[in-house]
Amino acid sequence: MNAMLETIMNRRSVRKYNFDEVPEEQLMDILEAGRWAPTGGNCQTVHFMVITDEKVRSELRARVQSAFARMELTEDLYASIKNSIRASRLGTYAFDYKAPILVVVSNRRGYPNAMADSACALQNMMLEATSLGIGTCWINQLHWLDEHPMIREYLEPLGLGTDETICGALAIGCYDGVQAAKPRTGMKVDFIR
Amino acid sequence: MNAMLETIMNRRSVRKYNFDEVPEEQLMDILEAGRWAPTGGNCQTVHFMVITDEKVRSELRARVQSAFARMELTEDLYASIKNSIRASRLGTYAFDYKAPILVVVSNRRGYPNAMADSACALQNMMLEATSLGIGTCWINQLHWLDEHPMIREYLEPLGLGTDETICGALAIGCYDGVQAAKPRTGMKVDFIR
Repeated sequence: MNAMLETIMNRRSVRKYNFDEVPEEQLMDILEAGRWAPTGGNCQTVHFMVITDEKVRSELRARVQSAFARMELTEDLYASIKNSIRASRLGTYAFDYKAPILVVVSNRRGYPNAMADSACALQNMMLEATSLGIGTCWINQLHWLDEHPMIREYLEPLGLGTDETICGALAIGCYDGVQAAKPRTGMKVDFIR
Repeated sequence: MNAMLETIMNRRSVRKYNFDEVPEEQLMDILEAGRWAPTGGNCQTVHFMVITDEKVRSELRARVQSAFARMELTEDLYASIKNSIRASRLGTYAFDYKAPILVVVSNRRGYPNAMADSACALQNMMLEATSLGIGTCWINQLHWLDEHPMIREYLEPLGLGTDETICGALAIGCYDGVQAAKPRTGMKVDFIR
């Protein structure tokens, strides 16, 4: 197994961060990794909003909690959205795990490869962070709330384009300890030889 | 810059393959890289169909060409789809660049993270291949033709689930020469400090 595969297999979703600072140079390398993702027709329209301001992250957290808490909990909802609603109603929900850095990844609305391109950028950032010993977690809540007025009216003045859709986000930060690897029991491979 | 970022920046979309064989062990590592992608709620539902059979790839190529050639060329279509239609009408279209290996990546229909999870798996495979000196190219044509009867009736007997949607595909093969890097002029990064 080469170093790349080893890093890929070592990546974990980190959901608990400590107070150590992510060195500026490492953050820049993580973002550069995202910027070098492939894009459909090389259109390069992925947009990264890097939020390190604690006040902004805290206000965003409150808005996300408030938005979910008011949502109706119906059976047909995706399981993770149900969890977000339940946690938000308890009033202690931190959708970003209070990571010191949150990168909001958006793309042009109506562009057919918006999610594909953004996901490649997110995966690049996760792998670069892993190679540097920095923790990350893909955050989907802002994607789910993409059209919610409480989120749009807060993020648009901060730079989210009115013509952009939020495809995902990434929590980034330092963490303690090593998490156990989860085996891959699914992810089926068939060969047509 | 560390080795991970270097590999990320060295990845290219390879559109011309030679006849060298991709060593079995390297193909397995590329697929393993895909299998270790993160998935929403760790559901692990990405499905990889690895087509190395030349007859199958050739028949699939003919079906893709035929499907596109019959499509109406309307202004509102995505630019790359228009290109596929034009090339198919000329009768010499090879959507997979005749790469020796084509991996069809599918996922459960209706699963909200189907594209996100599949894209992470594709990006992992592209990076592992790059680290091994193997070329790859993200192929979108089967995704665009996901619901087309000519594609479904051919791929379902080969293992594509009737409950699955094709999210993308990957051409894999050896190649000659080094392509020039395209600069990242887009991929905007904003900081909220």
